[in-house]
Amino acid sequence: MANVADRLANVIKDKKSLLCVGLDPRVSQIPKCVTKNYPRGDFDSIADAIVDFNQQIIEATADLVVAFKPQMAFYEQYGPAGLHAFKKTVDCAKQTGTVVIEDGKRNDIGSTTDAYADGHLGVVVTPDGKKFPSLDVDMLTVNPYLGTDTIKPFQRYCREKGIFVLCRTSNPSAVEVQDRLVDLEGDEIDFVRERLTDTGLSLLDLPAMKKGGNSGKAPLYVVMAKLIDGWGRDFVGECGYSSVGAVVGATYPKEAKVLRRLMPRTWFLVPGYGAQGGTAKDVPNFVGDDGLGAVANSSRDIIFAYEKSEKYGSDNFSDAAREAATAARDKINKALQEAGKWGFG
Amino acid sequence: MANVADRLANVIKDKKSLLCVGLDPRVSQIPKCVTKNYPRGDFDSIADAIVDFNQQIIEATADLVVAFKPQMAFYEQYGPAGLHAFKKTVDCAKQTGTVVIEDGKRNDIGSTTDAYADGHLGVVVTPDGKKFPSLDVDMLTVNPYLGTDTIKPFQRYCREKGIFVLCRTSNPSAVEVQDRLVDLEGDEIDFVRERLTDTGLSLLDLPAMKKGGNSGKAPLYVVMAKLIDGWGRDFVGECGYSSVGAVVGATYPKEAKVLRRLMPRTWFLVPGYGAQGGTAKDVPNFVGDDGLGAVANSSRDIIFAYEKSEKYGSDNFSDAAREAATAARDKINKALQEAGKWGFG
Repeated sequence: MANVADRLANVIKDKKSLLCVGLDPRVSQIPKCVTKNYPRGDFDSIADAIVDFNQQIIEATADLVVAFKPQMAFYEQYGPAGLHAFKKTVDCAKQTGTVVIEDGKRNDIGSTTDAYADGHLGVVVTPDGKKFPSLDVDMLTVNPYLGTDTIKPFQRYCREKGIFVLCRTSNPSAVEVQDRLVDLEGDEIDFVRERLTDTGLSLLDLPAMKKGGNSGKAPLYVVMAKLIDGWGRDFVGECGYSSVGAVVGATYPKEAKVLRRLMPRTWFLVPGYGAQGGTAKDVPNFVGDDGLGAVANSSRDIIFAYEKSEKYGSDNFSDAAREAATAARDKINKALQEAGKWGFG
Repeated sequence: MANVADRLANVIKDKKSLLCVGLDPRVSQIPKCVTKNYPRGDFDSIADAIVDFNQQIIEATADLVVAFKPQMAFYEQYGPAGLHAFKKTVDCAKQTGTVVIEDGKRNDIGSTTDAYADGHLGVVVTPDGKKFPSLDVDMLTVNPYLGTDTIKPFQRYCREKGIFVLCRTSNPSAVEVQDRLVDLEGDEIDFVRERLTDTGLSLLDLPAMKKGGNSGKAPLYVVMAKLIDGWGRDFVGECGYSSVGAVVGATYPKEAKVLRRLMPRTWFLVPGYGAQGGTAKDVPNFVGDDGLGAVANSSRDIIFAYEKSEKYGSDNFSDAAREAATAARDKINKALQEAGKWGFG
């Protein structure tokens, strides 16, 4: 199987789209036309409703998107039944040829992370030594608060599969940790200098640096960017990007531009497009000069588009989702063309 | 139901033990006398073997320990079957009157963390508005890289249930992130000064500060300690400790002592006792003057004690586990008495 970094590049070029659709099935928002078919209301029946809803969303949007991103929290909250629904959703999404990104933000160390890597990306071993795939997603989001010990076990699978490591998230309280100014150490100053030379960009442009930053300091997410760049070095595909990616939901354009230069070989998963306030105009900042390097995720604005649609009622939720996905893809593509970052012929 | 912080204090006083046993059922280490009863070798049968093994460990050690800590990675790797095994393990452990701490290191923002909080600690809502508990553990470990947005949704349940927020972990690469020196901001300098006055301790004693720290800087984990102290403020029980706890696996005694003073009302979950190199001598550094405030976790040194035991073979794995748990409890208690931190009469 090809490196997932290359698969992502190929799907983007084929479909001329950077859109990723988040499959976050909040049951309170799944339309009655679906839930009424599963009236028991126990966890098994909720899981069936989730799968039914997801399948209709996937069918309605798969030709428009490069990836589906099921958010694990919305599945595992229903226990074993929820994991059944997750697995069926993953299998359905994979059949469309898109990349499946599990948003699980998993993290731990040593043999514990081995278990996460085996279960989510790879194969698990039975007592008699046989090996089977389990959840078997293409990529998984990972939280790096514990450092390299979290990442290493996942790298075992990064020749084929991949991860997105949280770097700078877009939520308001990200600043409490990720924006904290840290003293740069070792070759970090050189790293930043080399990557930003001749770009017209400087760390001093970053909003976090207004709290007294100087050339010996940087927000923690810049330190994280160097770590992620290093973690991905051995997993760069033919497309020029690595299967060790980063979650970069920068709130300000300058952050995105700086992080793009600091991690030139890193796929960015950009959350928050749509409901969380990101706009199409922002997307080109996350994209490399080749028009690749980023996928932009939108969840509820696509899958629950029927709620804001006058044209489609809840019975036609999948038509509403298709229209919203088309609009999102086209807006992003227009922004790429206007920014001179259109790389798909 | 009582605040879990108070339940933890009561169980500790009743049992005169600070020991938590980690239920990390690596199938390759589960003895043949268990796995031979589940010969199919598929995920359902592995899950049954895990439950069988855990139940025997729980029965053999429950009177010696205050908490069981199942590590979610070892369950969810087997998908739905694994979550069945997890749930059965949790139910079995709860029946012994111990506190059940899920080690899941979950993290996200907003309505996604709501789903984690509902599913792991609280109740999930069905499409027709009914509410049911799902995984229903007592406490959950949480990763704080995304800041307050991750913590807030869990606080909804912290009157009864609780969380342990990662602060300083004991793995080697923790230094890459958690030990980074950051500029203190706002009232952080005052916070540190007030908490360390008359303790004979100073931030300058911390190993991380050797990289050029001064009174305006601290390792990131000190900033995190202040955040955790604040997150727990409204959830302090009658015992004087909060149901918002911290994972503190300090590698050096000075780190533990400083963090104990910075977070005087915070329960510490101390991993790494045993196999990861922590010793009984270290435990008193994590404990308050009242002999409370910390539980020390040991996983494989207890549950797989049979592997290192000459006295017990694999058929008597639960006896070996009981002997190892007794020894661990007693060693910790002896260290507490020697350190003048024995608070149980």
